[in-house]
Amino acid sequence: MAFSPLVDELVESLRCLPGVGQKTAQRMAFHLLEKGRTGGHRLAESLQSAMAGVRRCERCQNFSDTPVCGICENPKRGNGTICVVESPSDLLAIEQAGDYQGGYFVLMGHLSPIDGIGPADIGIECLMQRINDEDISELILATNPTVEGEATAHYIADRLDGRDVLITRLAHGIPVGGELGYVDGFTLTHAFRGRKPLSD
Amino acid sequence: MAFSPLVDELVESLRCLPGVGQKTAQRMAFHLLEKGRTGGHRLAESLQSAMAGVRRCERCQNFSDTPVCGICENPKRGNGTICVVESPSDLLAIEQAGDYQGGYFVLMGHLSPIDGIGPADIGIECLMQRINDEDISELILATNPTVEGEATAHYIADRLDGRDVLITRLAHGIPVGGELGYVDGFTLTHAFRGRKPLSD
Ligand SMILES: [Zn+2]
Ligand SMILES: [Zn+2]
Repeated sequence: MAFSPLVDELVESLRCLPGVGQKTAQRMAFHLLEKGRTGGHRLAESLQSAMAGVRRCERCQNFSDTPVCGICENPKRGNGTICVVESPSDLLAIEQAGDYQGGYFVLMGHLSPIDGIGPADIGIECLMQRINDEDISELILATNPTVEGEATAHYIADRLDGRDVLITRLAHGIPVGGELGYVDGFTLTHAFRGRKPLSD
Repeated sequence: MAFSPLVDELVESLRCLPGVGQKTAQRMAFHLLEKGRTGGHRLAESLQSAMAGVRRCERCQNFSDTPVCGICENPKRGNGTICVVESPSDLLAIEQAGDYQGGYFVLMGHLSPIDGIGPADIGIECLMQRINDEDISELILATNPTVEGEATAHYIADRLDGRDVLITRLAHGIPVGGELGYVDGFTLTHAFRGRKPLSD
């Protein structure tokens, strides 16, 4: 860009955001400079505070401002159940559904030998430690239904083989409100195999 | 979000970016926290510097770090031609095309009586002053081919009525490399009316 090193630098920095290329970064920079300087200043401050202040919860590995996060500190959530998810957004989706009342463990990823990501990198030892220390009766493996997610779930299940912990996996099936015609074959097969009596 | 006020605040602040809703802001925040803290810090600093340091050029109104921008200060660009554009991105597109060698005037908008945007708001008086002060032989009205862009171009042309300044508008026509079948009717009509002898 010919006209301003400060604008150039801002455009370049905005490209660290996921899904933001050169054109989008330019549009964002111009928007902030033209109409959003207050928002721009506020964003700068939030970024600084969050980058410096957000850590990982010592118990569940989720993002937290404090050593132990709000969910882990909430005595009502300590019902002996841990739900294992891959990411904070998965946790958020479950929280927003509003039904689950147990605790979490956030892997921040999944096993991926190709990328050199092993059990230690996603905190499996911490999870095992927590299952030893706390009175856990059920471990819900809510990793994604992808090859890596399934492999990660199986690895965790294997590690707990012979232990007195119920290990469950979320049900696959037709999305509520979904139309059969738009559901893929694998999901449909799962839905058939998991069919239940109407009275259920 | 249940787990971190700092993350909540970051997500909320990211929504000041154009085209960024709740889900996208969340994805951006999580990405920065998980894998991009260096980029996040750098973005915070660039934002702060740009929001505080970028001003409008005194001559062309474009964004600039200095009172007068690089293009306006460049003696090679003072060939008596001013190209009037609506926004810095329009200027950038022309600069990237690389052919135009004159100066600019950036309106940072267009006339829009409904939104209460009149000539003074887009700097028309400054433009008139500049045409008086400098030896301007041609004014290229490169506002957008929209109702507002056309109205703005006509308003500027009217203000210069009777003055010894050549007023031009960019040619409409088939985009280079474009296929006739995909060109809209208005453009095609313009292209027909503006047809030129093959030798041209
Ligand atoms: Zn926690
Ligand atoms: Zn300038």
